[in-house]
Amino acid sequence: MDIKTYKKNFDYSYTFGMFPTVELIQSMPDRVIKVLVSSHYKSESSADIFELCERFNIRTEINDKAIKRISDKDNNYVIGVFDKYECVLNPDNSHIVLVNPGNMGNAGTIIRTLTGFGLNDLAIISPGVDVFDPKVLRASMGSLFKINFEYFDNFDMYKKKFNNRRIYTFMLDGAKSLKDIKHDNNELFSLVFGNEATGLDSSFSFAGTSVFIKHTDRIDSLNLPIAAGIAMYHFCS
Amino acid sequence: MDIKTYKKNFDYSYTFGMFPTVELIQSMPDRVIKVLVSSHYKSESSADIFELCERFNIRTEINDKAIKRISDKDNNYVIGVFDKYECVLNPDNSHIVLVNPGNMGNAGTIIRTLTGFGLNDLAIISPGVDVFDPKVLRASMGSLFKINFEYFDNFDMYKKKFNNRRIYTFMLDGAKSLKDIKHDNNELFSLVFGNEATGLDSSFSFAGTSVFIKHTDRIDSLNLPIAAGIAMYHFCS
Repeated sequence: MDIKTYKKNFDYSYTFGMFPTVELIQSMPDRVIKVLVSSHYKSESSADIFELCERFNIRTEINDKAIKRISDKDNNYVIGVFDKYECVLNPDNSHIVLVNPGNMGNAGTIIRTLTGFGLNDLAIISPGVDVFDPKVLRASMGSLFKINFEYFDNFDMYKKKFNNRRIYTFMLDGAKSLKDIKHDNNELFSLVFGNEATGLDSSFSFAGTSVFIKHTDRIDSLNLPIAAGIAMYHFCS
Repeated sequence: MDIKTYKKNFDYSYTFGMFPTVELIQSMPDRVIKVLVSSHYKSESSADIFELCERFNIRTEINDKAIKRISDKDNNYVIGVFDKYECVLNPDNSHIVLVNPGNMGNAGTIIRTLTGFGLNDLAIISPGVDVFDPKVLRASMGSLFKINFEYFDNFDMYKKKFNNRRIYTFMLDGAKSLKDIKHDNNELFSLVFGNEATGLDSSFSFAGTSVFIKHTDRIDSLNLPIAAGIAMYHFCS
């Protein structure tokens, strides 16, 4: 196999750095093709990559040239190479839905946060970021490997497939303040967030309960992962 | 003056992009030295940079070479050049305190969020990011120009100066869950957050009330701006 700069159409991808690579190995060892290690790698007290790979029967390869070629930063000493995969969402779980997410760091941060709040399922309405991009994986700190995700061509397709839940759409001109939403813990929910620049269009006002997070008029909007984090905190804790 | 890549020791800095530059001009027109405009700049329906600068009597300069030299991205059509300044915190306000913040995007996001939740004062315990770095300014969406900020050599100096408030330190092993904190709105508070990688050390357990935001053990910690955003939402809304 060629080790080239990641592109969306590849059927494999990379984890950059120790932390996401360890998560990859522990979550789905069978999908790991190999682990590239820099000759400058120094074992950390908490985890040795060679030991870990040996335990899971994963091939390691010292290969500074390949690491340099595919890294976007200079400080990657460990890179996991793995087969991409597909999942489907669990209909018995609550979901996070991102409509056309555009920023990879934001998507990764949201994946990390939803994992932290005990959620397990992420729907992405296309077009949207490629969750297998190493930049998303890094921002997620490898949390992607612990969740289900699924892409949908449009929101209606998502909604038709999962019609057993309450839908909350987060919009600057939402009808209800998040503070006033009392959620029944026995009921499934989907929290829906729009694109960073454009938010959700007005059709989402009627897709469920539209919600705003109150903020001053000194800013245009909260940043997307912050809004999503606050919403998850409200619903999940 | 020389237009060079920004360095911390400069007594001026830059706003990259239309949005932060407009915030700069509207918040503190007297500090603007000039505005660099790309020959590729196209007026937006919402704001024309030449019109705005004329209204505030600010010099504009078409200078693609300077923009290319100092930009970190290719899509900056407008750059504000301004004199840096100092502020002091308002003792009659509640504060956000960042201890040794290391990531510029995170610091900017936190500044944007605190502005959105009606806070106005940010303390930074050194060493920490330079809030005038164009990367912080961009992530803050220009919100920095609307708040007071002040650097302190250590937390004790901050605490001595502002002893009229309740202090909440956010730590993974905090004593109280955020959910259980009932804050009296008449009382000033300071919310204290540690560095991205190391958090707050154990001395902060006794600096006030130590607080944790409950999350699953499937992640090591919430990302710093997410934790800060959730805390501000809890205290300010």
